[in-house]
Amino acid sequence: MPRPAVVSFGKPWYNGKMNYSNAFIPTLREVPADAVIASHRLMFRAGLIRKLANGLFAYLPLGLRSFRKVERIVREEMDAIGALEIKPTVILPGEIWKESGRWDSMGDGMLRAKNRLDHDFVVSPTAEEAFTAIVRDELSSYRQLPLALYQINTKFRDEIRPRYGVMRGREFVMKDAYSWHADEQSLDETYLAMGRAYRRIFKRCGLSVIPVKADSGAMGGSGSEEFMVESDIGDNTLILCKSCDYAANVEKAGCAPDFAAPDSPAAAKAAAAGVPPYQKIDTPNVKTIDEFCAFMNKADGGGSMTANRLIKTLIYRAVNVELDLSAAPGCKNLERKKAGQEASSSKNAAAFYPVAFFAAAIRGDLDLNETKLAALLKASEVGLASDADVARLSGAPVGFVGPVGLDSLPVVADHSVVAMSDAATGALEKDAHYMHVAYGRDFLPWMTGDLRTVKAGDKCPACSGELFEKKGNELGHIFKLGYKYTSSMNAGFLDENGKSQTPTMGCYGIGIDRALASVIEEHHDEGGIVWPVSVAPYHVAVIPIKYDGAVKAAADRLCSELEAAGVEVLLDDRNERPGVKFNDADLIGIPWRVLVGDKGLALSPPSVEVKRRSEKENRMVELDAAAKELEKEVRNELALLNG
Amino acid sequence: MPRPAVVSFGKPWYNGKMNYSNAFIPTLREVPADAVIASHRLMFRAGLIRKLANGLFAYLPLGLRSFRKVERIVREEMDAIGALEIKPTVILPGEIWKESGRWDSMGDGMLRAKNRLDHDFVVSPTAEEAFTAIVRDELSSYRQLPLALYQINTKFRDEIRPRYGVMRGREFVMKDAYSWHADEQSLDETYLAMGRAYRRIFKRCGLSVIPVKADSGAMGGSGSEEFMVESDIGDNTLILCKSCDYAANVEKAGCAPDFAAPDSPAAAKAAAAGVPPYQKIDTPNVKTIDEFCAFMNKADGGGSMTANRLIKTLIYRAVNVELDLSAAPGCKNLERKKAGQEASSSKNAAAFYPVAFFAAAIRGDLDLNETKLAALLKASEVGLASDADVARLSGAPVGFVGPVGLDSLPVVADHSVVAMSDAATGALEKDAHYMHVAYGRDFLPWMTGDLRTVKAGDKCPACSGELFEKKGNELGHIFKLGYKYTSSMNAGFLDENGKSQTPTMGCYGIGIDRALASVIEEHHDEGGIVWPVSVAPYHVAVIPIKYDGAVKAAADRLCSELEAAGVEVLLDDRNERPGVKFNDADLIGIPWRVLVGDKGLALSPPSVEVKRRSEKENRMVELDAAAKELEKEVRNELALLNG
Repeated sequence: MPRPAVVSFGKPWYNGKMNYSNAFIPTLREVPADAVIASHRLMFRAGLIRKLANGLFAYLPLGLRSFRKVERIVREEMDAIGALEIKPTVILPGEIWKESGRWDSMGDGMLRAKNRLDHDFVVSPTAEEAFTAIVRDELSSYRQLPLALYQINTKFRDEIRPRYGVMRGREFVMKDAYSWHADEQSLDETYLAMGRAYRRIFKRCGLSVIPVKADSGAMGGSGSEEFMVESDIGDNTLILCKSCDYAANVEKAGCAPDFAAPDSPAAAKAAAAGVPPYQKIDTPNVKTIDEFCAFMNKADGGGSMTANRLIKTLIYRAVNVELDLSAAPGCKNLERKKAGQEASSSKNAAAFYPVAFFAAAIRGDLDLNETKLAALLKASEVGLASDADVARLSGAPVGFVGPVGLDSLPVVADHSVVAMSDAATGALEKDAHYMHVAYGRDFLPWMTGDLRTVKAGDKCPACSGELFEKKGNELGHIFKLGYKYTSSMNAGFLDENGKSQTPTMGCYGIGIDRALASVIEEHHDEGGIVWPVSVAPYHVAVIPIKYDGAVKAAADRLCSELEAAGVEVLLDDRNERPGVKFNDADLIGIPWRVLVGDKGLALSPPSVEVKRRSEKENRMVELDAAAKELEKEVRNELALLNG
Repeated sequence: MPRPAVVSFGKPWYNGKMNYSNAFIPTLREVPADAVIASHRLMFRAGLIRKLANGLFAYLPLGLRSFRKVERIVREEMDAIGALEIKPTVILPGEIWKESGRWDSMGDGMLRAKNRLDHDFVVSPTAEEAFTAIVRDELSSYRQLPLALYQINTKFRDEIRPRYGVMRGREFVMKDAYSWHADEQSLDETYLAMGRAYRRIFKRCGLSVIPVKADSGAMGGSGSEEFMVESDIGDNTLILCKSCDYAANVEKAGCAPDFAAPDSPAAAKAAAAGVPPYQKIDTPNVKTIDEFCAFMNKADGGGSMTANRLIKTLIYRAVNVELDLSAAPGCKNLERKKAGQEASSSKNAAAFYPVAFFAAAIRGDLDLNETKLAALLKASEVGLASDADVARLSGAPVGFVGPVGLDSLPVVADHSVVAMSDAATGALEKDAHYMHVAYGRDFLPWMTGDLRTVKAGDKCPACSGELFEKKGNELGHIFKLGYKYTSSMNAGFLDENGKSQTPTMGCYGIGIDRALASVIEEHHDEGGIVWPVSVAPYHVAVIPIKYDGAVKAAADRLCSELEAAGVEVLLDDRNERPGVKFNDADLIGIPWRVLVGDKGLALSPPSVEVKRRSEKENRMVELDAAAKELEKEVRNELALLNG
């Protein structure tokens, strides 16, 4: 027995029945040239969206119904775990972005505006600042924690190349939730509850997602999880294990080491005991690893030099580095700033180096992962230094940099370098390399860490199975933020002992538009969309062969019965050929189609033809029983998705 | 028998039950100094909203529940009359505003932004352009008309002085609907349906509105209707009749004439047959009407000169005048422009004069209505000309302008002037006036019209009853737009005869935030808000004296029963004194309060104390029957509002 709707006592949430001729569903045969993926093509063709400008789309009535259903599923699951919905503004004051320091660091993707009074505004690309600004004023005691708030609201990010329809638009709707906690354990609990809620949300939408650990697979709790859908046009490369459920974004993926690294520099030095002292050799015009291997193999004729015996050393320019470099080589006089120097900004904003340079060393056969490097340096961005900067900082041209004797800037080495006790590397001068270089004996980097880009064929960090790659799109992201915003924006509470504390934070996002488009990506065929019933704009399409006479009467009666049963029904009352109606019903993807025609009504008992959108076959159902049977099927399908 | 909720089969629209301690309701005793009106004070104190910046407010969970209910009522009534919801973007491309010409004419209240590619964007203040841009691409045949689309979406208007909380904020949510029609009759039908829907919306929200005809009370259909609530801080002055239901905004209000005007200039000339020729008199330093009357009454000693015997003539500067002035006096060489000179703009955009000057004449005892003047001139703005402009254009200083012999600019006269056959007026030179001036004999204005500001005490244009004034705030506005956008933006369709036609348009707005605040303005007392049940965040507050033992068990059971019955219930599970809980329940305005205490439970049969927020008395109700009884009351109240 269903419970009644709360608010209006018996009114359905949405119009339960609609006549096609009143529904403004402008279906198309043609597709705009820029619509290269299925969801973009089908959302246009089925009349779900129209383009207002590059990256700006309007949802038409049919599209909005499905959009609202995704929204509602997200809302229900957020409410179910006790998150509370609020509604800050879409246009946010610039001041709070200056407080957090992101006024400077968010870049050109954030749309800004000045009003007539010269005040700064931001069109919300995300809302950590707004939520923290609200919460800090209300928070006083640990008893108010944990607190989880969310909004489902308009966002804007100025994509340079918006494409793929609403999959990567400029304006979109995001559910973004934020939580505040007195301790890590409480954050863990909410983080896990959000992870479970996200799994339910995607299941209810009929979406197959790959939850991807966004840290490097270390033991213990994860601090970040992305929910990906497989997609040929995905922004992300996923690293997955053939043997276990390990899944990670390549930006963060780890792998089991293919080397045995000594435990300490001393152990490394001991391991290099039998290695000859390092020695400079002439390598005229040998700049790349391939050239070096070719040169060496020609020189000694033995073919034993391979890329994995080289230490590759690259010089990077890093921006907004929050790491403390006061004791790092060559950094003594580096400019360091407080975020947001304006009067309004917080005392707690992190200090950062606007620009710093680093040498990054990694085994020659591996690719350096710039995302990992930026994370290690706590930098907002890293990029290869210019040739001029390389020459200025290392004293050598590009191609001849190496860690031995390099003391003009901090050296950051991948773990793979730690295992190298007899390596070749650049000699910090033109046309020269060193041979027999050993970590721990000949050089010690300022810092070591995981800088390696994991590839298909590497070994799983969890089970050592073989890793493979997929392309994916991110639909959701849950993330332990920590103290970044609560600290910079001075949010605090008194703990059990009356001591002032800073709460730790989590944040949790889902893109509604992208989720909707992804449903279509996963559920379509050559005829059009094949909606899962949970997000279908209507459950049932009733198609009278001709909307007239006895057929009309039977169709109207069936629609009334369906509507009374809570089944959403689209009645195709148009004066069109049945073929046109069938094609449109297929294109817009209504899960059940009921054909009402003279032939079926002439049967004894009078019958209609029922067809699932997802199946080839249809079947005859007694007219009298049709509404009940369809209701049962709709309920069963919904229960399967919701279950 | 309630119908089941459609979408999720049995899930209520909103969480049916909430524990107070989880609900994030930060009530306050203090009120911000700038909160001068009841709704602003109470929305803060009851924890419904918080301020993010001047004119930017965040809805907290309790406020958002009520906000969503207003939204839902609006949506249901729009759907009920066949309007279809769509969702364009909030950030709109500047191009479509250039097409319509409003890029230039909207002024500084429209927030604009440029993105990194130097494209122009607008934060939607309204959406005629966006909707017309969508519809024109889909519209081909008269068979698609009428079409009514709406959105409930974020808007931004850069108020110079945002105040009164969400009543006049910068960002707000508006329901804006637009309709397109093949002919006037169809527009009339939709316009009337919207008017009825608006009346139902306000009734369901518990709002007493004054529907105000926004034209001057002429017979026949109205082209514009505003829905006002009475308010001391209202932006609008309403003119109402004591004897009939005439109601108009003072900007447009008309009145029955208190003069008999001749039918034609010839008749006027004949009526002035017995009046002596006009005659110049010296009036040294006599600049104002009062001074003139005093001077004349002293001069002739008879006291017969009164303000209503004077023709007051004021020189106005008008901006963006769309009226054709090619044949008007003094306008031959006036600059005339096409709206939006950019390549993208439409050929159909109206031509306009960026600046033009006019002399406006009216009977000396009446006030000139600048809104009427602007409407008559089709100007976006009018304002008194500077002293220098007055002198330049009339040859006389301020105080001595009159219509006789004035041919350097167009004279626009109020109807009252037509009746004046023996008037005094300025003589177009310093320290001189004319006596015995007659309309039709001594001057003919370029144009006559209604320019009069109607006041309390004037006569009703409908029944000649006495008019009075009230202050009001506009909650909604329905308006026949005509062809302004469809013509400038080239929307067209083929009629029955295959001929290309331009559709006519209507537009229909309701401010959701302002409607919500107005509900509080109308429904509060010294203890706090007194919500109508339709927009109350919860229907019932259950207050256990102490949330423990048998009292807790009884309260929990009652809440479960209420929730199962579809009644939204807030359980005050806090460890606070009953007085605190009562005060908070009163402040946040929950319509029913149920006290669960030991004493009541000890009665035979065990009972609870039920109190309406709007009433002083409480009553004891059997615990076993309480949920059923409350459900019945909630349903009855809702039915009263919805009925």
